[in-house]
Amino acid sequence: MAATTSPESWADFYADRGFAGRTGFGDHPALLVIDMGRAWTDPASPIGTDYGDMIDRIATVLEHARRAKVPIFYTTMQFPPTKADVEGVYCQKYTNLPKIKGEQWSRIADRIAPSDDDTVVWKHRPSALYGTTLLSQLNELRVDTVLITGVSTSGCVRSTAEDSFNAGLRTVVIRDCVGDRSPAAHEANMIDIDNRYADVVDRSVVEEYLNRLRR
Amino acid sequence: MAATTSPESWADFYADRGFAGRTGFGDHPALLVIDMGRAWTDPASPIGTDYGDMIDRIATVLEHARRAKVPIFYTTMQFPPTKADVEGVYCQKYTNLPKIKGEQWSRIADRIAPSDDDTVVWKHRPSALYGTTLLSQLNELRVDTVLITGVSTSGCVRSTAEDSFNAGLRTVVIRDCVGDRSPAAHEANMIDIDNRYADVVDRSVVEEYLNRLRR
Amino acid sequence: MAATTSPESWADFYADRGFAGRTGFGDHPALLVIDMGRAWTDPASPIGTDYGDMIDRIATVLEHARRAKVPIFYTTMQFPPTKADVEGVYCQKYTNLPKIKGEQWSRIADRIAPSDDDTVVWKHRPSALYGTTLLSQLNELRVDTVLITGVSTSGCVRSTAEDSFNAGLRTVVIRDCVGDRSPAAHEANMIDIDNRYADVVDRSVVEEYLNRLRR
Amino acid sequence: MAATTSPESWADFYADRGFAGRTGFGDHPALLVIDMGRAWTDPASPIGTDYGDMIDRIATVLEHARRAKVPIFYTTMQFPPTKADVEGVYCQKYTNLPKIKGEQWSRIADRIAPSDDDTVVWKHRPSALYGTTLLSQLNELRVDTVLITGVSTSGCVRSTAEDSFNAGLRTVVIRDCVGDRSPAAHEANMIDIDNRYADVVDRSVVEEYLNRLRR
Repeated sequence: MAATTSPESWADFYADRGFAGRTGFGDHPALLVIDMGRAWTDPASPIGTDYGDMIDRIATVLEHARRAKVPIFYTTMQFPPTKADVEGVYCQKYTNLPKIKGEQWSRIADRIAPSDDDTVVWKHRPSALYGTTLLSQLNELRVDTVLITGVSTSGCVRSTAEDSFNAGLRTVVIRDCVGDRSPAAHEANMIDIDNRYADVVDRSVVEEYLNRLRR
Repeated sequence: MAATTSPESWADFYADRGFAGRTGFGDHPALLVIDMGRAWTDPASPIGTDYGDMIDRIATVLEHARRAKVPIFYTTMQFPPTKADVEGVYCQKYTNLPKIKGEQWSRIADRIAPSDDDTVVWKHRPSALYGTTLLSQLNELRVDTVLITGVSTSGCVRSTAEDSFNAGLRTVVIRDCVGDRSPAAHEANMIDIDNRYADVVDRSVVEEYLNRLRR
Repeated sequence: MAATTSPESWADFYADRGFAGRTGFGDHPALLVIDMGRAWTDPASPIGTDYGDMIDRIATVLEHARRAKVPIFYTTMQFPPTKADVEGVYCQKYTNLPKIKGEQWSRIADRIAPSDDDTVVWKHRPSALYGTTLLSQLNELRVDTVLITGVSTSGCVRSTAEDSFNAGLRTVVIRDCVGDRSPAAHEANMIDIDNRYADVVDRSVVEEYLNRLRR
Repeated sequence: MAATTSPESWADFYADRGFAGRTGFGDHPALLVIDMGRAWTDPASPIGTDYGDMIDRIATVLEHARRAKVPIFYTTMQFPPTKADVEGVYCQKYTNLPKIKGEQWSRIADRIAPSDDDTVVWKHRPSALYGTTLLSQLNELRVDTVLITGVSTSGCVRSTAEDSFNAGLRTVVIRDCVGDRSPAAHEANMIDIDNRYADVVDRSVVEEYLNRLRR
């Protein structure tokens, strides 16, 4: 790969043209945990991957968020998809979805299971804000900052970051709390996310921010 | 970059998990020309790039589409952005947008200027279907297939492909008629687009499809 | 009520100004059954009403639709509402919603229970197209005409008709298959619906249309 | 009209079932002026009406809002409509729209013309939040309360109130600053709006609220 097409030059090239500005933190964050259901996190699933220690890191962020009384939203998807989605373009593109059936695949990984105070959003497309009322709920709670964890960087994480940004919310992707089944896809999409939609921020910085909110 | 993280393995890895199915062509296409305004296509613009022969190739597709009486939609953006966008996250992330002012930057490149029969959609976010009535218009014309050309692969092209797919429409990105200011960004995003949202198809195949519709 | 403010003059006044045009039937209808869950149709519910014979009439339309292999979508709502909806404006306006809990209130009335081939859409706002992927599903099935039954005329029926129309779909409200807990609210909203969003059509006309599709 | 179907009993009937709760004022309002373009406010327009002193009352609210530094958004529509809207259901229902052409019809009434600090939103459907980025802009400014003036109560005012409420924002319709070409349509829709989507509030109360924000 030539220097002009390396990831580094790609990020720099965009930054030189005024992309990749910082949108920062506001006063009222919400934490999103995207698609940490078994369909994605269990290697036995046809679309699943072993995310190693990432679940432990998300658990740490969740603890900080709970102590700061920050609202927490989990997303997962409905299996099987609707009849229309099976017959239409959705399952023509994602051909394995009709094979996944039942609550055992949509259920969030045990280690980071939602508490009764959290909200689980059933979504049907990559973005957590497409075809859901998540944005309405964020507005009802006067959330101004969306903190994103989960999978996949190249799909639901990126799409959710984009729609959150599009809606006028400060959007933060926590660096080592998002992942992808392909490391190359992860790396490439993190550049675009940081250039275009969200601040990619270290977990330690987010945890300090959450600690400050407790005071 | 290790073999397991090369673009090739990334595409294969996803295909092995049932992504990258084909959604194909329907009977009633529309052609989209995304953001071929001077802000993006004139190297003198702070966010502009020289796209070389790509404009000529888009002109060829436009000819085929006009002969087949296919509806054509151009998108461009309003400069300067709204007051809220300037004060909010939008221009915190895209810091050069407030500097671009006036119709000379939003105007479509002369070589492929819209005709009176075409529709120009003023959009305010990357996706041509976000915050516009483009989807309503496609439905009014009973369009079932969206053919995408223009820029940037890593931004407005990808976002438009995703929202078109999300809305249940067959979505096709014409391979050498979309581009990006960064070749690395182009290459990476074409993989995700083909895996997740649209069929990436050669221009010759699309032109044959348009020719068949004339009969 | 003076003649100039009677429902008749209101409809005429609008028609004279070019409203209330006919949008007609297309070739690919879907049938919507809006909010015929027990929360609305059981007088024991805090927001429920006895709709008398209306359920029987909807059952008749359903039979015609099933014979014509027309896709059928039911909507209902989730009880209790989400935590954000309870804390926010949603349940400040609809104060009884938090009191309704459990599947016994969201379940569709037995007489017109969905079959396995039908789709049940869980919605969270009046319009069946707001915060759901119903529009995506209609597009995936290439639906061009939406036939609406259910309750309430002044709420979810009207809102669904408006959003279906906004999305570019031919929209038909079946006259004696929609209802409201207030007859005055029903009567007034049927005028606006016919003026602005949907053709209000007799059930016999819709059933003939469905019969024609079987051939 | 029997007592059980009078407007009074309709409002009471709903209130008895827990509708019509108050959502109140927040801390960061925006003022919306809906469709006060000449197409609607000039009796010479095919869809126009003389709204008498209402424009003067809106001018008074505008003065209060400007003194309180509250962001102000005007909406108007594009004439002629797009080609797709003319060919599709939109202009099949609103048959006079294709006859209205040019900026003389979309321009806001002189008496309440926007200032350079205000934002004009070009919309294409009744709701000011459908197919626009108005919601994104309200979020960017952290608006929590939407104050609505303009026309028509049975169309764009009601639809905008509904979508603002749906999005989780406190929504207020200012009683004598909204109007309709039909007094009966106005009266009926004000009941539904107050029951379902927004607090209908006297102008004096809103002006006192805006005065308080100046301190």
